[in-house]
Amino acid sequence: MADLAAVKRALTAQRIETPSWAYGNSGTRFKVFAQPGVPRNPEEKLADAAEVHRYTGVAPAVALHIPWDKVDDYAKLNAYAESLGIEIGAINTNVFQDDDYKLGSVTNPDPRIRRKATDHLLEAVDIMDQTGSRDLKLWFSDGLNYPGQDDLRNRQDRLAAALRETYDRLGDHQRILLEYKLFEPAFYATDVPDWGTSYAHCIELGERATVCIDTGHHAPGTNIEFIVAFLLRQKKLGAFDFNSRFYADDDLMVGSADPFQLFRIMYEIVRGDALNPAYGISFMLDQCHNIERKIPAIIRSVMNVQEATAKALLVDRDALTRAQDAGDVLEANAVLMDAYNTDVRPLLAEVRTDAGLDPDPIGAYRRSGHDEKIIATRVGGNQAGWGA
Amino acid sequence: MADLAAVKRALTAQRIETPSWAYGNSGTRFKVFAQPGVPRNPEEKLADAAEVHRYTGVAPAVALHIPWDKVDDYAKLNAYAESLGIEIGAINTNVFQDDDYKLGSVTNPDPRIRRKATDHLLEAVDIMDQTGSRDLKLWFSDGLNYPGQDDLRNRQDRLAAALRETYDRLGDHQRILLEYKLFEPAFYATDVPDWGTSYAHCIELGERATVCIDTGHHAPGTNIEFIVAFLLRQKKLGAFDFNSRFYADDDLMVGSADPFQLFRIMYEIVRGDALNPAYGISFMLDQCHNIERKIPAIIRSVMNVQEATAKALLVDRDALTRAQDAGDVLEANAVLMDAYNTDVRPLLAEVRTDAGLDPDPIGAYRRSGHDEKIIATRVGGNQAGWGA
Amino acid sequence: MADLAAVKRALTAQRIETPSWAYGNSGTRFKVFAQPGVPRNPEEKLADAAEVHRYTGVAPAVALHIPWDKVDDYAKLNAYAESLGIEIGAINTNVFQDDDYKLGSVTNPDPRIRRKATDHLLEAVDIMDQTGSRDLKLWFSDGLNYPGQDDLRNRQDRLAAALRETYDRLGDHQRILLEYKLFEPAFYATDVPDWGTSYAHCIELGERATVCIDTGHHAPGTNIEFIVAFLLRQKKLGAFDFNSRFYADDDLMVGSADPFQLFRIMYEIVRGDALNPAYGISFMLDQCHNIERKIPAIIRSVMNVQEATAKALLVDRDALTRAQDAGDVLEANAVLMDAYNTDVRPLLAEVRTDAGLDPDPIGAYRRSGHDEKIIATRVGGNQAGWGA
Amino acid sequence: MADLAAVKRALTAQRIETPSWAYGNSGTRFKVFAQPGVPRNPEEKLADAAEVHRYTGVAPAVALHIPWDKVDDYAKLNAYAESLGIEIGAINTNVFQDDDYKLGSVTNPDPRIRRKATDHLLEAVDIMDQTGSRDLKLWFSDGLNYPGQDDLRNRQDRLAAALRETYDRLGDHQRILLEYKLFEPAFYATDVPDWGTSYAHCIELGERATVCIDTGHHAPGTNIEFIVAFLLRQKKLGAFDFNSRFYADDDLMVGSADPFQLFRIMYEIVRGDALNPAYGISFMLDQCHNIERKIPAIIRSVMNVQEATAKALLVDRDALTRAQDAGDVLEANAVLMDAYNTDVRPLLAEVRTDAGLDPDPIGAYRRSGHDEKIIATRVGGNQAGWGA
Repeated sequence: MADLAAVKRALTAQRIETPSWAYGNSGTRFKVFAQPGVPRNPEEKLADAAEVHRYTGVAPAVALHIPWDKVDDYAKLNAYAESLGIEIGAINTNVFQDDDYKLGSVTNPDPRIRRKATDHLLEAVDIMDQTGSRDLKLWFSDGLNYPGQDDLRNRQDRLAAALRETYDRLGDHQRILLEYKLFEPAFYATDVPDWGTSYAHCIELGERATVCIDTGHHAPGTNIEFIVAFLLRQKKLGAFDFNSRFYADDDLMVGSADPFQLFRIMYEIVRGDALNPAYGISFMLDQCHNIERKIPAIIRSVMNVQEATAKALLVDRDALTRAQDAGDVLEANAVLMDAYNTDVRPLLAEVRTDAGLDPDPIGAYRRSGHDEKIIATRVGGNQAGWGA
Repeated sequence: MADLAAVKRALTAQRIETPSWAYGNSGTRFKVFAQPGVPRNPEEKLADAAEVHRYTGVAPAVALHIPWDKVDDYAKLNAYAESLGIEIGAINTNVFQDDDYKLGSVTNPDPRIRRKATDHLLEAVDIMDQTGSRDLKLWFSDGLNYPGQDDLRNRQDRLAAALRETYDRLGDHQRILLEYKLFEPAFYATDVPDWGTSYAHCIELGERATVCIDTGHHAPGTNIEFIVAFLLRQKKLGAFDFNSRFYADDDLMVGSADPFQLFRIMYEIVRGDALNPAYGISFMLDQCHNIERKIPAIIRSVMNVQEATAKALLVDRDALTRAQDAGDVLEANAVLMDAYNTDVRPLLAEVRTDAGLDPDPIGAYRRSGHDEKIIATRVGGNQAGWGA
Repeated sequence: MADLAAVKRALTAQRIETPSWAYGNSGTRFKVFAQPGVPRNPEEKLADAAEVHRYTGVAPAVALHIPWDKVDDYAKLNAYAESLGIEIGAINTNVFQDDDYKLGSVTNPDPRIRRKATDHLLEAVDIMDQTGSRDLKLWFSDGLNYPGQDDLRNRQDRLAAALRETYDRLGDHQRILLEYKLFEPAFYATDVPDWGTSYAHCIELGERATVCIDTGHHAPGTNIEFIVAFLLRQKKLGAFDFNSRFYADDDLMVGSADPFQLFRIMYEIVRGDALNPAYGISFMLDQCHNIERKIPAIIRSVMNVQEATAKALLVDRDALTRAQDAGDVLEANAVLMDAYNTDVRPLLAEVRTDAGLDPDPIGAYRRSGHDEKIIATRVGGNQAGWGA
Repeated sequence: MADLAAVKRALTAQRIETPSWAYGNSGTRFKVFAQPGVPRNPEEKLADAAEVHRYTGVAPAVALHIPWDKVDDYAKLNAYAESLGIEIGAINTNVFQDDDYKLGSVTNPDPRIRRKATDHLLEAVDIMDQTGSRDLKLWFSDGLNYPGQDDLRNRQDRLAAALRETYDRLGDHQRILLEYKLFEPAFYATDVPDWGTSYAHCIELGERATVCIDTGHHAPGTNIEFIVAFLLRQKKLGAFDFNSRFYADDDLMVGSADPFQLFRIMYEIVRGDALNPAYGISFMLDQCHNIERKIPAIIRSVMNVQEATAKALLVDRDALTRAQDAGDVLEANAVLMDAYNTDVRPLLAEVRTDAGLDPDPIGAYRRSGHDEKIIATRVGGNQAGWGA
């Protein structure tokens, strides 16, 4: 049996980072439906992120996206975050929304554009120096829509050069998280399509380059928890971008499409002793709340990760190992499912109460009046959004 | 052996409809890259469509999209099209870009919104009366992002009611083309996800309701030519939205991702005697040229359909039947592949020359100076685009 | 809130049919791993099925597979089943293992083979007359491995003819369940690839032909509960073949790969008032226990269906409808998830105890000594298997 | 323009290895359809392979599968091959058909079974010493059907240990080709599911361990030519197992499902200067001719690879580079498609004639009477097959 006190300690120590852009408007290529009360600047995003932390207690960091969250004075932004009880987390780069990047950023055939894109990555490290961020998260939309459009291999050379230059710019306590993605916005080929590509580049870069797994970026049938287990074994797993999907990169609330998969992922984390923040894995959300209210959706997402984690922690590891070693397929599966089928909501309510929180974060948020307040007060100005 | 004169006649008689919106800007949720020279109004779209017809000779009709192509005077638009040597084709409805449609249009839980959406469909029929269009193409973005979000079955009832009301409004020579789509922009469930759903509704509506196959709207592994063959057998295939894709609804140039699949689709059309315009199937393009020049991309797409058709027409049907009846798997496959492996470009060059066209449509377009002209003259104003 | 007494009544009334072949050996194309104690004849399969019913109380019927379960005297087999407290359920046909069927059975280009295959279907109805079975389950492995191998449309004509002849042979209380499958053993095209094809044939056949959904037979990304809801609306859902899969037709224990999906499927059943056996839907297992002990795997599978059903019954339908009608995406999803996240094992233990059963079916089976007994006594002879 | 003489030289120098097991019977889990004339021993397989080489001139090597092709005297087998004008190629291991391997071979939780499996790998190297083979091809069916069944990470440790021991046993001129596979026969997880896993192990093993790409072993949507380009860049591509598929690991004739994909793969080979046998990549077939005659199917497969290669060689590399560097998406794609759309069969007929071969290998084989001869003479005995 799992040690309940240890389970509670682990749940209390867990940290989940939320992304500034999830508080802004988002949508599909067909339509962005604006929502009332959406933040109009980085400060308002931080204020919303602080609400999520207020009711969950495990989400003190918020990832920024440059240039969406560019400000003149990061020290001031840091101080503002601190005043809200939160802090600035990873810095995300954006080399996909400038007109120059139509055919790629760091892999573009045009050296001028590659220079511009790499300079943006270096600028992001400058910002990290100011925010004190540890993590530089790199996602490249680079790729091809048509066979022949560009040379697949030359693009890898260009990618490697940009990564090398950026890596060499990192401070001692900074690191690169290199994301991969099967498709979108490029349709025929992406320049970092899978974990293997990211892994190979990270190996060449050095120990401060690690792979970031976005749970929505895989081909159908991919066993994500295998990747988790494998990268943990290779000491190259740096971060998650959590979300969920049914078919493509849907960016839905994590745990909403396949909660069992999320549980299996978190089980590999627990099994690899990698849950504790000291291990160094950053557990981030990367989601788009296109049609649902954003703050409660993010609270729900945090709770979904917590519930999957609690179930993973409850797995009777000794019984599991015994059944596995004995080749008892049904019993081994049953031990795992026993934890999954447990209703962990009472346990998490206890953990929250012990931490001085409301046991019902969604209800507490609803009762707080924050939603009504932002709707009433955030009028005028430009709402934040993917294009903002 | 195929009768070469008959093949040429069939290729000469072939018709491919182009979509007004493909001449405008498009993109992904990440970015719309604007291109110089893009049309700013329906007339400029018609002018571009006329260029495609000028160099291919088989694309005289252009589909409109309401409200993107809304004008005050459709008779005038008709006359303008005629003056360009083309005509207005299908009318496409848009019930996905109004803020009201966040949770659906005709399947929305709110009766007011359903009424509004259905009224838009009826308005489209009014426009058809004015343009003389035969085809009302219906695609609904309606669906759910999250399990439980709405009742799947109630939504079918609402859909059926809207379709019925629209069908009953049709004139004698008008018809509904009901499109289906696996996912996007809804991620968990779409209200018309597959051909079976469209087919079942069309059966209930009556003989003037038929299925529209968008070649990019299927799950991986779906055999599209089977659907073509099956719907032909059931006399319920009304139209194609041609494009191609590698993973999702990429809307790339038809034939660019899997030219062999396009050939197999066109073979089923030829085998079902359904190529001739008199049969009543509308062969439309529905594409997004996000990063490539739009007019030559559409010319190339038309040529790709022509090439696939030519190969399909060249299949030695007698030899194929003999091998099939004999159970000679290798020979039957070889007969089909023999046609596919034929280089039909010289044949199509002949067909074009016979029709008084340049044998090289892309080259002719490039030499025409149209691209330079539109870039120079279409300045100022708002470029047409998905949101325009 | 759901009415707990009604939930218990529904769970008590639920019926799940098990397949005779799941008690025999099975495997992949690479290897069939034989297990000790496997039945050697239909009677021993019935004995194993009786064990499953003994400990679950909801699995009184066992489906037969012809010719695997062919006997001289079906009255005697019936009587034997009755003596074990169970009964014979659906009759499954096999037109895929005779050498003649290499290129198809009822769709074969050779009329002699079509005749032979159709005669087998008719023979199965004869057997149904003797066993008193209501359901004739038809699955055809027919299809093509290579484009061009045979004519897709002619094969539909042949299929329709065989179905018609079989349908006309049915007695008043008998019916056809027509299964569909995306791929395997045919790789390029199958003759009944999707629910739409099955549905269209069933519509043409008449009201005693209905669709059978095998949960492992879909393309990736297919929303199965949508198909359930849609077919219920059309009154054309006849049966399930339950199993689960990660990528292809894995035939794993139902609920083991995606328990949330199974819950969503059962929710649509509950929502359509279709759970009660009186409604007429047959809930069957169709699984292969390649590496795990077969009887406890089937008990576990039955329990998995029960647990998903219990959760579906616990959905607060009023609250769900309120949230759906209000367009409250998060609340509607939360209502559904609240039921899913409930641990229903105590409730099912109560239901079992109320029915005079052991609350722990797996434990009870293990303690019964049946496994040891069959291993000790079933020696010699030929074990049943897919090829037996 | 491509240099036609150089193209012909490259086509003449090309080598494609055929697999001994493709000449034997194969099938699906549903049925193995035996064919008349199938080999009954390794010698008869070699005789059939010699036929393929006789008519294509590019298939002089045949891969063996141990224990299916186990003989007492490999020197004698070598001599026999030589007498037929062919040679023995790669040695393939089989650790999936012994009853011990139900839960895995080198990753099995039971150390006795791991020892047995590793010993088989070492024995295969012994055989390589006798046959003079360079390549040890390793494919492991190891994996899990159910979550929890075994520990994913421990299995990697066990895999690494077996690979290390085998690698250390290799002679200086021998190497490991490590294959990966998404699924089947394991359904939930495979121990080497993707190229990244194989690559990471190969990196750790050393320079004589390289990745083998089986074209049928990927998730839907995977861009295989990207993997080819990437592994060439990393100098870790060792071999191909060619075949084609529509959905799963269908093992159909290479080029039959998606000839454009095969062309794109061969283009990356040509672009990476990796076509020449001196480069060291082994181009092997790995197919199952379940329903078609085996020898002509293999001849056709070899021809399909040749045709894709010829098209790849015909790409106008200078024009392509110019268009790519200019960011001309349409022109770059057009240059590639121009080569693909070329009918290269006349060119290959010339190459064959120049080499003293019949320009029509399939026709020549048919006319040779070999098919009739083997049907007449290979009677009695046990036909070779996957289980033989």
